[in-house]
Amino acid sequence: MQVIPPALEKLIDQLAHLPGIGRKTATRLALSILRKPPMLARDLAEALSNLHDSIQLCSCCFTFSENDPCAICGDARRQADIICVVEHSADLMAIEKTDSYRGHYHILHGVISPMDGIGPDEIKVRELLARVRSGTVKEVIIATSSTVPGEVTASYLTDILQKESINLTRLACGIPMGMDIKYADKYTLAKAIEARSPAR
Amino acid sequence: MQVIPPALEKLIDQLAHLPGIGRKTATRLALSILRKPPMLARDLAEALSNLHDSIQLCSCCFTFSENDPCAICGDARRQADIICVVEHSADLMAIEKTDSYRGHYHILHGVISPMDGIGPDEIKVRELLARVRSGTVKEVIIATSSTVPGEVTASYLTDILQKESINLTRLACGIPMGMDIKYADKYTLAKAIEARSPAR
Repeated sequence: MQVIPPALEKLIDQLAHLPGIGRKTATRLALSILRKPPMLARDLAEALSNLHDSIQLCSCCFTFSENDPCAICGDARRQADIICVVEHSADLMAIEKTDSYRGHYHILHGVISPMDGIGPDEIKVRELLARVRSGTVKEVIIATSSTVPGEVTASYLTDILQKESINLTRLACGIPMGMDIKYADKYTLAKAIEARSPAR
Repeated sequence: MQVIPPALEKLIDQLAHLPGIGRKTATRLALSILRKPPMLARDLAEALSNLHDSIQLCSCCFTFSENDPCAICGDARRQADIICVVEHSADLMAIEKTDSYRGHYHILHGVISPMDGIGPDEIKVRELLARVRSGTVKEVIIATSSTVPGEVTASYLTDILQKESINLTRLACGIPMGMDIKYADKYTLAKAIEARSPAR
């Protein structure tokens, strides 16, 4: 028996396409939307409809932006000669929150992952190389994640960029701030020992 | 600096209103919607827009339905003289999945919870009493959850319904199927001992 009304079923199907949302969560979300005033559902629908129409990729750093160039690339007060290379726009947002970086970015939109058929040509590597070769760049900070595909991508970028006359750096890897050393995993701890710095 | 485009920020705000979705998850979902083809966002927006327009409450059992009466109340093959009282439509869906109940339902749309200012008048108790008093009902199965507010609601319903000339039952409480007894919590185990039944 069809106990879930078709309009609800359709919303559940759509929600279940989102990452990390299974059918149970989708059902819970859809029912909660249904219990709330119709205005909330309409606001969410409007936000979704407007999303792709108003957002594009910045032609310089490839982050999502309503303007081209984006707010960062277009800001004359930021250092255009340092490029921080990240996997996704979410990483850019995380770094911006620290308020400790004043350079530009380059969004790869993915990582090299041969198992998934993603090579350097599927992500914005060529565009990065073109930016570096334009001659104004002094430093490239590779800020891919310290996961296996992130490290593979970092190695690849190191390979192709070390021929260029720039400073090439990588985010430091070590014990997270505030963490008790006895709870750190052995790989992080080994990395932290290896990358130890003079005590100040 | 505004690194999140306003259209994206708006979607994140809207998604963060959903239960169990915080700002971090909302950001992850919004970015993943943005990375996918615009059609998917539009389909989701359409499903949301149509939701409240096509779904109403069944005037008999108060479940969400596109038709009135709903598919269950309108089905002549189901037993109209048994009513299973549940908190939400999601509970009805869960019971229907078992394929072991052929009666009707009554959705309370909540539980009695004095701390949240929800008394019997805020949920569909009066409507249940009216259905029971209409004279065709032989059994009412109280199927509220075995949580504190669920039990409070069950006690209240038992109080007001035991004066009516009907069979009043409650879902059995005990060890879940397939569970090792040594892992059952002591309250469930105590309930299971108390409610033990003749071995067959």
